[in-house]
Amino acid sequence: METAIAAGVHINASCGGAGVCGTCKVLIKKGEVESTRTSRITDKEYESGIRQACQCRIASDLIVDILPESRMEKAVLSRENKEISSQAPMPLADGWKFSPPAKKYFVELPGPMLEDNTDDLTRMLMGLRQQHSLDDLSVDYEVMSNLSQILRDGDWQVTVTTLPDNTSGVKIINVEPGDTRARHYSLAFDIGTTAVRGQLLDLNRGKVLAQIIEYNKQISYGEDVISRIVQSQKAGGLKKLQRAVTDTINGMIAGMVEQAKVGIEDISHMVVAANSVMVQLLLGLDPKYLRLSPYVLTVNNVPLVKASSLGIKLRDYVNLYALPLVASYVGGDIVAGILGTGIYQRKTVTLYIDIGTNGEMVIGNSDWMVTAACSAGPTFEGGGIKHGMIATSGAIEGFDINHQDFEPVINIINGEKPKGICGSGLINIVAALLKSGVITQNGKFNTNLSTKRLRKGDDVYEYVLAWAAETQIEKDIVITEVDIDNLIRSKAAMYAGCQTLVKSVGTSCSDMEQVIIAGTFGCNINIENAITIGLLPDLPRDRFVFIGNGSLLGARLTSFSDDLLRDGQKIAGMMTNIELSENADFMDNYMASLFLPHTNTEIFPSVRIEKGRIN
Amino acid sequence: METAIAAGVHINASCGGAGVCGTCKVLIKKGEVESTRTSRITDKEYESGIRQACQCRIASDLIVDILPESRMEKAVLSRENKEISSQAPMPLADGWKFSPPAKKYFVELPGPMLEDNTDDLTRMLMGLRQQHSLDDLSVDYEVMSNLSQILRDGDWQVTVTTLPDNTSGVKIINVEPGDTRARHYSLAFDIGTTAVRGQLLDLNRGKVLAQIIEYNKQISYGEDVISRIVQSQKAGGLKKLQRAVTDTINGMIAGMVEQAKVGIEDISHMVVAANSVMVQLLLGLDPKYLRLSPYVLTVNNVPLVKASSLGIKLRDYVNLYALPLVASYVGGDIVAGILGTGIYQRKTVTLYIDIGTNGEMVIGNSDWMVTAACSAGPTFEGGGIKHGMIATSGAIEGFDINHQDFEPVINIINGEKPKGICGSGLINIVAALLKSGVITQNGKFNTNLSTKRLRKGDDVYEYVLAWAAETQIEKDIVITEVDIDNLIRSKAAMYAGCQTLVKSVGTSCSDMEQVIIAGTFGCNINIENAITIGLLPDLPRDRFVFIGNGSLLGARLTSFSDDLLRDGQKIAGMMTNIELSENADFMDNYMASLFLPHTNTEIFPSVRIEKGRIN
Repeated sequence: METAIAAGVHINASCGGAGVCGTCKVLIKKGEVESTRTSRITDKEYESGIRQACQCRIASDLIVDILPESRMEKAVLSRENKEISSQAPMPLADGWKFSPPAKKYFVELPGPMLEDNTDDLTRMLMGLRQQHSLDDLSVDYEVMSNLSQILRDGDWQVTVTTLPDNTSGVKIINVEPGDTRARHYSLAFDIGTTAVRGQLLDLNRGKVLAQIIEYNKQISYGEDVISRIVQSQKAGGLKKLQRAVTDTINGMIAGMVEQAKVGIEDISHMVVAANSVMVQLLLGLDPKYLRLSPYVLTVNNVPLVKASSLGIKLRDYVNLYALPLVASYVGGDIVAGILGTGIYQRKTVTLYIDIGTNGEMVIGNSDWMVTAACSAGPTFEGGGIKHGMIATSGAIEGFDINHQDFEPVINIINGEKPKGICGSGLINIVAALLKSGVITQNGKFNTNLSTKRLRKGDDVYEYVLAWAAETQIEKDIVITEVDIDNLIRSKAAMYAGCQTLVKSVGTSCSDMEQVIIAGTFGCNINIENAITIGLLPDLPRDRFVFIGNGSLLGARLTSFSDDLLRDGQKIAGMMTNIELSENADFMDNYMASLFLPHTNTEIFPSVRIEKGRIN
Repeated sequence: METAIAAGVHINASCGGAGVCGTCKVLIKKGEVESTRTSRITDKEYESGIRQACQCRIASDLIVDILPESRMEKAVLSRENKEISSQAPMPLADGWKFSPPAKKYFVELPGPMLEDNTDDLTRMLMGLRQQHSLDDLSVDYEVMSNLSQILRDGDWQVTVTTLPDNTSGVKIINVEPGDTRARHYSLAFDIGTTAVRGQLLDLNRGKVLAQIIEYNKQISYGEDVISRIVQSQKAGGLKKLQRAVTDTINGMIAGMVEQAKVGIEDISHMVVAANSVMVQLLLGLDPKYLRLSPYVLTVNNVPLVKASSLGIKLRDYVNLYALPLVASYVGGDIVAGILGTGIYQRKTVTLYIDIGTNGEMVIGNSDWMVTAACSAGPTFEGGGIKHGMIATSGAIEGFDINHQDFEPVINIINGEKPKGICGSGLINIVAALLKSGVITQNGKFNTNLSTKRLRKGDDVYEYVLAWAAETQIEKDIVITEVDIDNLIRSKAAMYAGCQTLVKSVGTSCSDMEQVIIAGTFGCNINIENAITIGLLPDLPRDRFVFIGNGSLLGARLTSFSDDLLRDGQKIAGMMTNIELSENADFMDNYMASLFLPHTNTEIFPSVRIEKGRIN
């Protein structure tokens, strides 16, 4: 595993190398390894040379195949990319002025004479005052280093780049000879636990010039934030995690600069929105205390930091701005989403949900805002599911079932032979099984049905979605009762989170005038099916809006408008976080939600049960 | 020369290695060198194996002796050290509060709980607000890096160090677990072209804990600021010069920390006062434009810079503050002197003179201040004088002459056999020669005198101060007409500078209510003799005050008081600089001053000429 990472080959490793998940299977085609065998490797696999990459020590030169289900493929990313850009009109922050925080000013200075030989910096500051009414600018020391030569190279005509500083002032970060205003770019990044999304922005025209999505290379150190935190506590772990994400970012920057034919020296600013753990890891701040009660972050309003000091390959004058965090599990990605969607500007009470391994939700409007996060588990990303996988090529996503013979109709991402089940597929599968009566409302199989698809597997019942011969992995792809249980727990956590949150402000889900589903995973779920299984509240369907990646949206807008940059800080400040993990109400709601769709059928009126089934 | 520098052995090299000064003589005792011979090496010297270090290329392993006159000895430094500390009471800035810019605050914070799990930084800022009324603090990003652990290591009791930032705010630079207030130190440095003076300060008690003086290792790259600038324009030159001075500083810091038994991590602040060229070189800023008309500095008010980023071995949180500069040749050392002596606080019109290779003068009071600098040449440091040397062991300093037989009485620093003549000695020698009639008022020898001490040397007349047998260098030590000419030019530049300056504000030297002589060289000059040769204006002697090193004084006080730190900026802002180098009045005054004491005898009434001599 470590060698693969060092070689830039990133293998799926849900558990971060602990040996317990079995997602990092590789086939040793040639050469010797010493390996510990765990129960995740069957006898047949072991004999054929399959091993868990994380359990192998290299004993000779090797030729290794990564098994299809362990591969991290890019196909999904381009698919995702397309879907983001084809989104319908969505709620957006309004009324802001296009005025990027990073600004370029062109100044023409009188050259020095004996009668006026003030120092170069003062001359430039006077020019900025007279020609642009800029006062009280502070200056990054680094600007001094070549200032005299730059002023003379530009024949006393220079372009000055400024940025709001950590307090309420503005600072000079760069001076260039001549007029470079036409070349003025920035970067917006959404750094997710699984994927990193970046955009190269034109700060003159407010346009996206290039966009790339990549897996976060930290995936090799574990699938969820908790395993990343655990990893960070090992010797050198924090540095490794920081390097993994900066490597990811550097590759993306190189790619975008290349795509857009932009000079790296013309990038002046970088805005990052990310969950709290991703922010702390990017900044190299030990996230240890985030996962220990009482869940304390090092810093919510992160001071500006030079991107280059973190290992990001940008010029020294590029400051990285991280959208402010709210709590351990409510990060800058959520603040960015609230910012981008303009929820904080409207009277409408909105529920904002970001479904993922970590589920975040916000309720509020222009006057107030409460937020909470719950650990939904990796189910929605395909984790903890026997044949689960992320939503990439070969994942079963669309699903229906014949109510007579219980034969499935499956739809696979990219139309390949199936390799496994992705999160959105899982929702569709469980909804279909429920509606067809293959499972009951408590998630157990109706073992009286007569179909060879339903069988007892290793100790538990399972339903065969695809026979071995039809698959890429040459194994039956099944969904087990354990898988369904896991999904029920995940959706219960999300739903109970929303319920607890709405109740904390004395309202109910039905009072939500709008529900915004954020996140790429959210984009791909089927609303009807999500309501059927009780993941989303049962509201008129036209109240639901998908916004795709709200985090990247907010990061981009922050880079376009200093009004919005300030608004982001305001939003973070107005959010009251409710810690669900130690909330008794949440536990009650959670227990009551461990049913399909819910033990209280009254709150899911549109999901009607007939003949023991749900229609 | 380069090898000697690399080995840490610093040889006198007035011309910076150009081969023209002959001050870097060494004796090759064993081994081979390839060397270019210049006229600075006599036949006898050449035969005995003496070479100019800067003209030698090493061809084999060598054993080399540095000739006594080329050595840079520390003896003078300890002597100087003593004299500074034994200074009489002097004019000092008044009415300031002891309140160092670098401040430590101890805060006791409530630990986080679920009901109060705000981020660590906000918690600390709230504590500072509540317990110390500190608002709107900004935070250096680096403070984040280990903040969470430090707060917990200190069991929520920490010491926070703050510093005024570049604008009008205050920033947090360091946080330490527990109560570290008792250990709170800073450094004050005067970085001179020749010598660097440093003090380690206790910021709790306002005391000097240790003090070291060292030669500036840049000396090996030339004796005066012009040759340093020339050197900086060579490939890699700027870096070399920066490294030379940071090496000097690092050695001194190590020494002072050792002397005072202070932990390097307890030093939070560093204040530097230096001339403009020294500041730009220390900061690594190309000084090229300082010596080209119209003489423009990169920056007067230098933004704070991390000392470690310049190569100074202090913790990353130590910011270096450089006292503001006024012009190319009026630097932070002069601002520091005006600050330390409190001239800017009083109504008394004061003339402040810093005599050296570069002579600086200021006239003013609490309402106004004008300043000028002139190039006096290296004469006062012993440069450009046949047997000139810096004021170290073996230098002839005290001098008198028998008016009958014209035999000399000499007094040598440290009582050794003489090696040469130092600057203060030169003044005494010329004054004595003038008063005894050995020379005339235009600096020429009275060749009618009957004494074997007066003779024609290489083309010019010279007076033998010491016969070879009485010396360390085994050569007659003489003063030549060329030497006297050089001194006249140097003193004329200084005096004309003062005259031009006083005239520029419509006053005259006699209106000066106080004359403050700053600089270590200034300390050692004899006022009577200095007036006799026309270096200083002929005023009542009680108006003269010596303050020793005004620059270090000002740097120290700046580190003790943020009032004074602000005053330093005010002083720099109120100074009007007069560029003498292109001033017609100055040229006239200079020409008129090329006489002993002056062509206009009326302005030197106390220097009376009798029988063709001066009494």
